[in-house]
Amino acid sequence: MSELINRQIRLNKRPKGEPSPDDFKMAETSVPPLNNGQMLIQTLYLSVDPGMRGMMEDKESYTPPFSLNDVLTGRSIGRVIDSKNENFAIGDMVYERLGWQDYSISDGENAQKVDQNLTPISSYLGVLGVPGLCAYFGLFEIGQPKKGETVVVSGASGAVGMAAGQLAKHQGCRVIGIAGSNEKNHYLKEELGFDATINYKTTTDMGMALQEACPEGIDIYFDNVGGEITHAALTLINYHARIIICGQTSQYNLEHPPMIPGNFDFLIKKSALMKGFVVYDYADRNDEAVSYLARLMNEGELTYEEHIVEGLENAPQAFMDLFKSKSFGKQLVKLSD
Amino acid sequence: MSELINRQIRLNKRPKGEPSPDDFKMAETSVPPLNNGQMLIQTLYLSVDPGMRGMMEDKESYTPPFSLNDVLTGRSIGRVIDSKNENFAIGDMVYERLGWQDYSISDGENAQKVDQNLTPISSYLGVLGVPGLCAYFGLFEIGQPKKGETVVVSGASGAVGMAAGQLAKHQGCRVIGIAGSNEKNHYLKEELGFDATINYKTTTDMGMALQEACPEGIDIYFDNVGGEITHAALTLINYHARIIICGQTSQYNLEHPPMIPGNFDFLIKKSALMKGFVVYDYADRNDEAVSYLARLMNEGELTYEEHIVEGLENAPQAFMDLFKSKSFGKQLVKLSD
Repeated sequence: MSELINRQIRLNKRPKGEPSPDDFKMAETSVPPLNNGQMLIQTLYLSVDPGMRGMMEDKESYTPPFSLNDVLTGRSIGRVIDSKNENFAIGDMVYERLGWQDYSISDGENAQKVDQNLTPISSYLGVLGVPGLCAYFGLFEIGQPKKGETVVVSGASGAVGMAAGQLAKHQGCRVIGIAGSNEKNHYLKEELGFDATINYKTTTDMGMALQEACPEGIDIYFDNVGGEITHAALTLINYHARIIICGQTSQYNLEHPPMIPGNFDFLIKKSALMKGFVVYDYADRNDEAVSYLARLMNEGELTYEEHIVEGLENAPQAFMDLFKSKSFGKQLVKLSD
Repeated sequence: MSELINRQIRLNKRPKGEPSPDDFKMAETSVPPLNNGQMLIQTLYLSVDPGMRGMMEDKESYTPPFSLNDVLTGRSIGRVIDSKNENFAIGDMVYERLGWQDYSISDGENAQKVDQNLTPISSYLGVLGVPGLCAYFGLFEIGQPKKGETVVVSGASGAVGMAAGQLAKHQGCRVIGIAGSNEKNHYLKEELGFDATINYKTTTDMGMALQEACPEGIDIYFDNVGGEITHAALTLINYHARIIICGQTSQYNLEHPPMIPGNFDFLIKKSALMKGFVVYDYADRNDEAVSYLARLMNEGELTYEEHIVEGLENAPQAFMDLFKSKSFGKQLVKLSD
């Protein structure tokens, strides 16, 4: 195997504001022989996630930052092509945080086998993966939706937003999605059954648009974006509202985030709850979530979309596009069949 | 009784920024005869509360706003001096939201008898009243303190803050109080056993001061003030921190609140919870709270302070002083013995 050439995407410099092509660089290395206990994984799909932007900063967060020249890593699906690990055999499909590279060596400790017969393997990076789990735990644990409540989802055409909105619909809620194009919003309404949508790019007054879409106020706000959209939503919350802080995508590239009034009185006035989370908080309940989501998929109550870009060399562009609202559903990079 | 002269404090105009003397006016009326089912209450103690500032705005909140020329109302203790209500007899002591006036007529529906033998009656406006209940439900329901955790209390020398800090100490937490004078802070440390204090008026760098006082970060932030102090505290929260939004006193007089970054990513990074509340949310559990607080008082584990101003005519000044950080403990106005 040592003659394999391993292409890698490395962090060339730390982005300032929006990431740009020269923040990344391509390198080539060889693949060393396996030690006992190791396996060689060929990358099939990489997930590009807005959260990786934070790891490119030189700041401690819930995951440690990348160092300069590091191979970028992210959630991935790969195929075992060689193994000296007794728990994994050639041909196994695994989910792991792999490098943005053609081949990875793993000791298997953080690898999970996935069932390639149950569902297309890419869905383990989307609706059955972290985005689906975010939707599930955020909505049910923090949101606790009740029939008839009004749920607003920002970033509604992303993998998390689509799943969260559909789960809320399934609970009998009225669901309003906020996304960045009429085409996306059309899909949310016609295909996923959202009750109303707002195109934040063409709406001049988000407060007014939300007020029209939510005549009975907002009971649950599922936030993937932060910033002005969130600020507008917070002015419309109802008594005992739940505000789920899942992502703040609009903020990750900003060196100086926009300012909002430093007054949390709105939480007192409505006895409202605001909670941030990451899926790892609920790691011991993954199976419960995955089986619920898989059941809904099989019943046709949960649909997902993927936006698949081909080729490792296009991973940086796919990542950059996340912040331009170009993607639709789960953004993936496919390296091999 | 009709010859009684009833002095009243009315809302003369809506304050702009900090309330000023000409926002209030004194009026005199007579007391009409009682109808069946009514009783006449002589006001003994008025509670002046920062929350009343919000009711002086022409805005809907958790309580409806005052109209111009309305007699101001607030939580009060009074004595029944005449009664055509079978549930209340002359001599009974009652807790009710009364007007800022010498005499009130009540149908008894929202009046609660208080036991004048159990504790000084004024404590039903403080440690056994709304401030004590705020401390109890905020700390225990939202904060859920665990032994050894670090708890920061802002507005620590107010009635809520003092009680919250002592309850947290009783749970075995490390408690840091933020207050506006060295004298107050000395009291918090020496008399109430707070572990550390910060004088926000003389501290030039609140972030640094908090970092020094909380070397292991902040697990619970009990917020009574909002603004810059809160912003500094939020940068130091630990994983699974609980942020209790009880009051935002620093903000109530501001026409344009200071701005903070519009980014709730800090809640995601720490899987933190932020929750506003009012005591009415827990109205059905008042008895539980009062008996807990009374027990701690009797055991000497819960001390309280009152700052009592004499005379109805001084109620506006007592209210204005709330925002100048002049009061210490519960601010009361005494009208009669």
